[in-house]
Amino acid sequence: MAEYKLLKKDGNAKRAEFHTVHGVIQTPVFMNVGTAAAIKGAVSTEDLEQIKTQVELSNTYHLHVRPGDDLIYEMGGLHKFMSWNKPILTDSGGFQVFSLAGLRKIKEEGVYFNSHIDGRKIFMGPEESMQIQSNLASTIAMAFDECPSSVADHTYVQNSVDRTTRWLERCKTEMNRLNGLERTINKEQLLFGINQGAVYEDIRIDHAKRISEMELDGYAVGGLAVGETHEEMYHILDVTVPHLPENKPTYLMGVGTPANILEAVDRGVDFFDCVYPTRNGRHGHVYTNQGKINLFNQKYAKDARPIEEGCQCPTCRRYSRAYIRHLLKAKEMLGMRLTVLHNLYFYNTMMEEIRDAIDAGRYQSYKEEKLYRMAQGPQE
Amino acid sequence: MAEYKLLKKDGNAKRAEFHTVHGVIQTPVFMNVGTAAAIKGAVSTEDLEQIKTQVELSNTYHLHVRPGDDLIYEMGGLHKFMSWNKPILTDSGGFQVFSLAGLRKIKEEGVYFNSHIDGRKIFMGPEESMQIQSNLASTIAMAFDECPSSVADHTYVQNSVDRTTRWLERCKTEMNRLNGLERTINKEQLLFGINQGAVYEDIRIDHAKRISEMELDGYAVGGLAVGETHEEMYHILDVTVPHLPENKPTYLMGVGTPANILEAVDRGVDFFDCVYPTRNGRHGHVYTNQGKINLFNQKYAKDARPIEEGCQCPTCRRYSRAYIRHLLKAKEMLGMRLTVLHNLYFYNTMMEEIRDAIDAGRYQSYKEEKLYRMAQGPQE
Ligand SMILES: [Zn+2]
Ligand SMILES: [Zn+2]
Repeated sequence: MAEYKLLKKDGNAKRAEFHTVHGVIQTPVFMNVGTAAAIKGAVSTEDLEQIKTQVELSNTYHLHVRPGDDLIYEMGGLHKFMSWNKPILTDSGGFQVFSLAGLRKIKEEGVYFNSHIDGRKIFMGPEESMQIQSNLASTIAMAFDECPSSVADHTYVQNSVDRTTRWLERCKTEMNRLNGLERTINKEQLLFGINQGAVYEDIRIDHAKRISEMELDGYAVGGLAVGETHEEMYHILDVTVPHLPENKPTYLMGVGTPANILEAVDRGVDFFDCVYPTRNGRHGHVYTNQGKINLFNQKYAKDARPIEEGCQCPTCRRYSRAYIRHLLKAKEMLGMRLTVLHNLYFYNTMMEEIRDAIDAGRYQSYKEEKLYRMAQGPQE
Repeated sequence: MAEYKLLKKDGNAKRAEFHTVHGVIQTPVFMNVGTAAAIKGAVSTEDLEQIKTQVELSNTYHLHVRPGDDLIYEMGGLHKFMSWNKPILTDSGGFQVFSLAGLRKIKEEGVYFNSHIDGRKIFMGPEESMQIQSNLASTIAMAFDECPSSVADHTYVQNSVDRTTRWLERCKTEMNRLNGLERTINKEQLLFGINQGAVYEDIRIDHAKRISEMELDGYAVGGLAVGETHEEMYHILDVTVPHLPENKPTYLMGVGTPANILEAVDRGVDFFDCVYPTRNGRHGHVYTNQGKINLFNQKYAKDARPIEEGCQCPTCRRYSRAYIRHLLKAKEMLGMRLTVLHNLYFYNTMMEEIRDAIDAGRYQSYKEEKLYRMAQGPQE
């Protein structure tokens, strides 16, 4: 069912359409993160339709512990539950198990851990992750993997990645089984595998080759932006992405700044997600084409301009920096909502520009100009 | 400029149009409270346009201490600052001075108190209140008054009300002066006087007569819903409202429940404001025509219905009780926004029904049926 149409290459940058049961995704795409089935900052799915959002990303671990994937299944799946009819990607839950949960034990069968909400014991392995994501009925499910620390040694990472490969086989088998069940809401749920290997080239490349043979619906590069430098990250992409299938989506998980995205697109990545635009927005940090500005700064107290002149987002079409600054200082939730709306619109619009630039075969000059402008800082 | 057109009376219930420089207000009207130039719950002025809001009410005291009325004046007034072009009413600041501020001293000239934000000393008297409200450039300014405690003795209340009358004269003089200044943003700012007198009939009636002679743009009944019983409140309205001009707006400040509003309309009141719909919404309490329900209740966990079947608000058109309950439990701000939107829509729609009922000369039967239905409780 899913079909990835590679429309154009410009250098290594890929421009594609990914056809899913919930609609077509134009790539490169930035997925907007709504952890607990909602974008933080009181942003509704109705709002998302105003800010060019193509894919919403929800977190399996969070939804498993609250309200429970069984409840969401009973409510007809995540699309119906949150009232969003475009594509949804769910992560595997693995990353949160490793970063949020308290005591945990990794075994061949999976991970034993305690809920960060109420401390109750939970087990999650490849089959459980697939079952939960099948209950959520997202468009794209992510494979259950371990994301080793960026400073783990070679032996640890090799063993971890070998296990992740075995887990991926189990994920694929379980996903096939689930998609064949009568009870399943989305019988065309897609599975993306995840490349790991920390900063070890040899492990990354070997793993990329092995998972590429598995004929999955897409491939992610995981375990980056977890402490290594930007240069290390770009280097890993340089050596790894060429070993992932070009005719499948290439997803760089949890990345990143506008500059990170521009560089990664140049290395063949076309799916992204990151909490930066939402988290920064909630703290008053907003993106402009001349770099980020902090609306808490006193100099914006009487600034009647929108966050960015010419921006067509719901915030900039109507509200001033002065007003938003006041809201943020008065701790009025509306302040966060307005900054998050602008920041997501900024990211989503940058992806649109990226697609246009690749279409026109001018990605290099676009990227360089965009990076240059953003590095200048606001002119005022 | 302002013109109050009494369109119809049904018993004592008044149906009118109040023409202001910012548009026509259809009364009876419920004003939506946005304390710090924003409705709490991340509700934007764009949202207000979707939920039948006619008048936004902001609090002078809050805006005076943050961001400062001088800043809002420089930004072109409250309408421009918050991007809302329909009527705005500002209170006098008096109520907050008496309820929020720390140490305070009431003198003939006004009140000395400490800011609740940073403790700095502030003086506010009738002239200062008018100057601040003139800076805010609201459509309707409220007179500066003292709201005595509902248990204050007769002598205290008599003295307080006498001073409030002297303050009202000063407010009127100062407002006239301000409206004549070149610098003033809204030179047609209106002034409503406020009737006080706690639960003492004689003081209420005498005060109502005295202020009615002052030819103000409207008259409020203040100092109710501050601890007295509903019956005491209705009785004070019964004896006081007949002594206020029928051909002017009659505003019952800070009231109240849907039942309070239905009863007060029946006694000739046609302007209302209250924090209940916003505050209750933020706590998961939502209004329906069968009474209030608490979305935190376990029985709504898998309830796919909207808050109220048939409700055309932005929340009910799209989201289920189950989803909103999940958001509230997960402390996602969106939960509060969706409940506040519904609750304000519920109040604004009830006012529309009230106007239709008076227009049709069937207010009594409408009121009785509405009260009866709401007292039944949800059927489930
Ligand atoms: Zn914008
Ligand atoms: Zn509703």
